[in-house]
Amino acid sequence: MRPLSLNTATVRKQWSLAQIIDGCARHDIRGISPWRDQVAALGLKNAATSIRDNGLTVTGLCRGGFFTAEDWKDDNLRAIEEAHALGAQCLVLVVGGLLPGSKDLQKSRAQIEDGIGAILPHARKAGVPLAIEPLHPMQAAERACINTLEQALDICEALGEGVGVAVDVYHVWWDPKLESQIRRAGKENILAYHICDWLVPTRDLLSDRGMMGDGVIDLPRIRRWVEAAGYTGFQEVEIFSELDWWKRDPDEVLQTCKARLVHC
Amino acid sequence: MRPLSLNTATVRKQWSLAQIIDGCARHDIRGISPWRDQVAALGLKNAATSIRDNGLTVTGLCRGGFFTAEDWKDDNLRAIEEAHALGAQCLVLVVGGLLPGSKDLQKSRAQIEDGIGAILPHARKAGVPLAIEPLHPMQAAERACINTLEQALDICEALGEGVGVAVDVYHVWWDPKLESQIRRAGKENILAYHICDWLVPTRDLLSDRGMMGDGVIDLPRIRRWVEAAGYTGFQEVEIFSELDWWKRDPDEVLQTCKARLVHC
Repeated sequence: MRPLSLNTATVRKQWSLAQIIDGCARHDIRGISPWRDQVAALGLKNAATSIRDNGLTVTGLCRGGFFTAEDWKDDNLRAIEEAHALGAQCLVLVVGGLLPGSKDLQKSRAQIEDGIGAILPHARKAGVPLAIEPLHPMQAAERACINTLEQALDICEALGEGVGVAVDVYHVWWDPKLESQIRRAGKENILAYHICDWLVPTRDLLSDRGMMGDGVIDLPRIRRWVEAAGYTGFQEVEIFSELDWWKRDPDEVLQTCKARLVHC
Repeated sequence: MRPLSLNTATVRKQWSLAQIIDGCARHDIRGISPWRDQVAALGLKNAATSIRDNGLTVTGLCRGGFFTAEDWKDDNLRAIEEAHALGAQCLVLVVGGLLPGSKDLQKSRAQIEDGIGAILPHARKAGVPLAIEPLHPMQAAERACINTLEQALDICEALGEGVGVAVDVYHVWWDPKLESQIRRAGKENILAYHICDWLVPTRDLLSDRGMMGDGVIDLPRIRRWVEAAGYTGFQEVEIFSELDWWKRDPDEVLQTCKARLVHC
């Protein structure tokens, strides 16, 4: 079994970052992937110290990106600094949807690629790999118009060293080219591997993700593909669940994540 | 402007097929694409006569497919007969989701391809082209695990003459390979072109489609792509809208469809 990392979004409605770090220690979860607002609330220095003191691996910082918004550059440069301070294995990029008021996907995508290219020298200098996360096509308009692994890897190839992908099963499980594109990505480009499950039915486009084992994603198969590509990192659990897991006792959530690793 | 065809799902909550045929005549809409349950309710022979008498072009029959369900073969053979009786330009295939109780996309997809191959000789004999409709990835589990135009065209190539695609903007607008795959499809393989719009936000994964102009799809651009590929057929409006258009006066819906052609 690949070890577990907790993306802090999974219990963000119940716990502060300090409580989440304690929870990880208590449940012997060895990896964490915090969100920037939670880091800011605790204070960057405090967060870094506390994570280090608890021996947690920071499998990613969520998130940079949104290159189609105003002020994308300064915000991304700050995100790189924060990822560096936390010793994060990567900065996850949710790249942003359509340009405001526009229907022009091509132009939006071009601006995104230019944006990643513009911050890449800073990321390289800071030693922070950038992880493009292709999001599910149902989130193309609002959150990310990079929507397949193939598209993300084309950008990685164009931009060169220092940028790879975050493979989140929720976003890519349906893709007929998933296996071949994971192979193409290889060890070099798979910077993070995120797990959860796809519920049937799915009641909300953003916040109705399932716990591993409760949905239809063949998690062991996809894990074998990323392992065959050379990935040796954590399995990061990231569950947005307004209707279920965000309402539960967070200790139960963490216990369940660990117990469900048999389905991964 | 490409002429308008009305997919009868657009007003199915308000009108019977007989009423829809009358409505098309009244609003000078020259194409129709009926659903099989509506045809059955009116009677196949009555439906065919009424459609012919009103001079309507049948741009498609909805739908065959669901090759991962029980009894898929007999049902599809009946659908081919009905499409033939109606003089439909194609039988639209919603191919079906995961096999019951399975998480195996590969196996489900293989069964779907085999199923299309199995009915294809019957469709050829009847002179009914089969139109594979790739559905949006958010509908992969339950309705269709053919989810990109590229994937559908690979199947068309493997199976040969008599099978093409239905390009529905709702399902494919986000695809970074859309333009190149429309070009690849060409006049030969584009059997139908369906329009509506993608709403922001989208409140339901199945029944929250928008009227043309109310969402973010760059409809003129996609139309130009299908025209450049050689498509000379109708623009078929298909709107599933539990929350809005299915609640309105159907005459208003048809008027609006016509008025919104300027956005297409």
